[in-house]
Amino acid sequence: MRVTVVGIGAIGRAWSISFLRAGHEVRVWDKAPGVVDDARKLIEIILPDLVKNDLLNGRDPADVVGNMKPFPSLEEALEGSDYVQECTAENVEVKREVFSRLDPLTRPDAILASSTSGIVPSSFTEHLQHRERCVVVHPLNPPYLIPAVDIVPSPWTSPETIERAAAFMRSCGQTPIIMKQEDPGFVTIRLQGMMYHECWRMVKSGLASPEDIDTAIRDGLGLRWSFIGPFETADLNAPGGIRDFVGRFGKDLRAIYPTDGPVDWSGELMDMVEAHRRERLPMSEHRNRQLWRDRRLLALAAHKKAQSKGA
Amino acid sequence: MRVTVVGIGAIGRAWSISFLRAGHEVRVWDKAPGVVDDARKLIEIILPDLVKNDLLNGRDPADVVGNMKPFPSLEEALEGSDYVQECTAENVEVKREVFSRLDPLTRPDAILASSTSGIVPSSFTEHLQHRERCVVVHPLNPPYLIPAVDIVPSPWTSPETIERAAAFMRSCGQTPIIMKQEDPGFVTIRLQGMMYHECWRMVKSGLASPEDIDTAIRDGLGLRWSFIGPFETADLNAPGGIRDFVGRFGKDLRAIYPTDGPVDWSGELMDMVEAHRRERLPMSEHRNRQLWRDRRLLALAAHKKAQSKGA
Repeated sequence: MRVTVVGIGAIGRAWSISFLRAGHEVRVWDKAPGVVDDARKLIEIILPDLVKNDLLNGRDPADVVGNMKPFPSLEEALEGSDYVQECTAENVEVKREVFSRLDPLTRPDAILASSTSGIVPSSFTEHLQHRERCVVVHPLNPPYLIPAVDIVPSPWTSPETIERAAAFMRSCGQTPIIMKQEDPGFVTIRLQGMMYHECWRMVKSGLASPEDIDTAIRDGLGLRWSFIGPFETADLNAPGGIRDFVGRFGKDLRAIYPTDGPVDWSGELMDMVEAHRRERLPMSEHRNRQLWRDRRLLALAAHKKAQSKGA
Repeated sequence: MRVTVVGIGAIGRAWSISFLRAGHEVRVWDKAPGVVDDARKLIEIILPDLVKNDLLNGRDPADVVGNMKPFPSLEEALEGSDYVQECTAENVEVKREVFSRLDPLTRPDAILASSTSGIVPSSFTEHLQHRERCVVVHPLNPPYLIPAVDIVPSPWTSPETIERAAAFMRSCGQTPIIMKQEDPGFVTIRLQGMMYHECWRMVKSGLASPEDIDTAIRDGLGLRWSFIGPFETADLNAPGGIRDFVGRFGKDLRAIYPTDGPVDWSGELMDMVEAHRRERLPMSEHRNRQLWRDRRLLALAAHKKAQSKGA
């Protein structure tokens, strides 16, 4: 497949690795000069780590990066493309303008996918001539280590577009989450959001500290969730499966449902949570801890791959 | 330390492994005859797997199991005990009766801990003479692979009891979550509950299938959450830390907060979710999948241990 990545900041760069690893030609364009060269250099730093962890499909890093092709104009980058991944600014006006350019410059059957994390596709594709091939394909970051992607159709996205986008994602090692209709809360965002809401609520109501809440996930619930989802977790947690689980625990879980609306994550509550975080991690160590997180994520991806091979 | 486990079903058995591994003498009693022998046999099956994965602190399985001592009477099992872990039926009347027996049979400074997952400690300890040393210490299952434990004080639990229970837990390799006051929604239960609420809501509103939602966690959010909690995740997801994160994403996350109360997990919705699960996992394979889950949890615990050694 011939893929075009439009905008090669952090998201476009990470997508490129995923596409290149799958053996696709990746044509790249960015409106800012020099950004493409920076992206290539960063990708060259990342690839050896993927090789070391058996996460580059046995490919040679030099070949992989050689398949990334920068173009000075958007027109050339889009030439003959089968799949376009838009990774520009998170702003509906920008998306609208970019998609207005992409539509006439691409084959009518090329898929135009946006990386947006919360702008519904109808808001920037309605006016296009071939709007049925436009869809949101939203990654967690970085997609070459985190397989799940939200696929969000607009009301006019064709079923064939959804199917082809999902198939392309699977060919890149991603696992698509196919939303049945558009909604500003994508599945991955909603689940994150509800988790955050409950975390802040518990801190505000004085039940537990941010650190203790992090412990509950990091050393508790997050372990199972790194290889089975909530429905499967519940299904396996009762001898008779999910109906049995709800029969045993449903009433108690429903009883603790909050009815007081979302907590405001600001003011003194924010001061307190931020102070908690800075006590554990001074800003001077912030960048190092991000790099540590990235290494852990890489090691976990390698662990999961080895485990699924063994199964 | 001399530890007594009261009730040796699935939870008592799993706790015993955690206590034994830390080098404690574990005195065991169960009202049902024969259960203790069954528990010992199951523990003997589990220990070699822990050794293989370097999760038994370098101890010899025979020594470990030799430190587990069954007693025919509760009185004898409690003799000289420093810490008692109650693992009887999840019923407030049962807990009340058991704690009424434990209180006079133990040293007044012994800690009496309940494994309950949602009964507040005030409801079964109020009448006791030495109620200040009673506390909930709630494990996820099994605690020898999942470190996080909720520590829940009643209004009369002494700060010293909380501190000593937390220290004992740390000595066993657990990571305590210390709730600042009792509430029927323990921290680990609330976080699970809110996750379930949002999962069922999305299925009910037709946004996504149970399988797609599981994908969002298992191949998405759950990866980071297996080694960093939600507050740290947010803190690392913006260059300026958590305040910067909320400034960037808070408004959108708050906008998707549901206002329609908890979804009812029953009727046609349950039929549909159950059918989804059974399609992926026939009940005839349920037990095998549970064993697979347990192996994956073991492998993940080993992976995390190796990673934290490397760090």
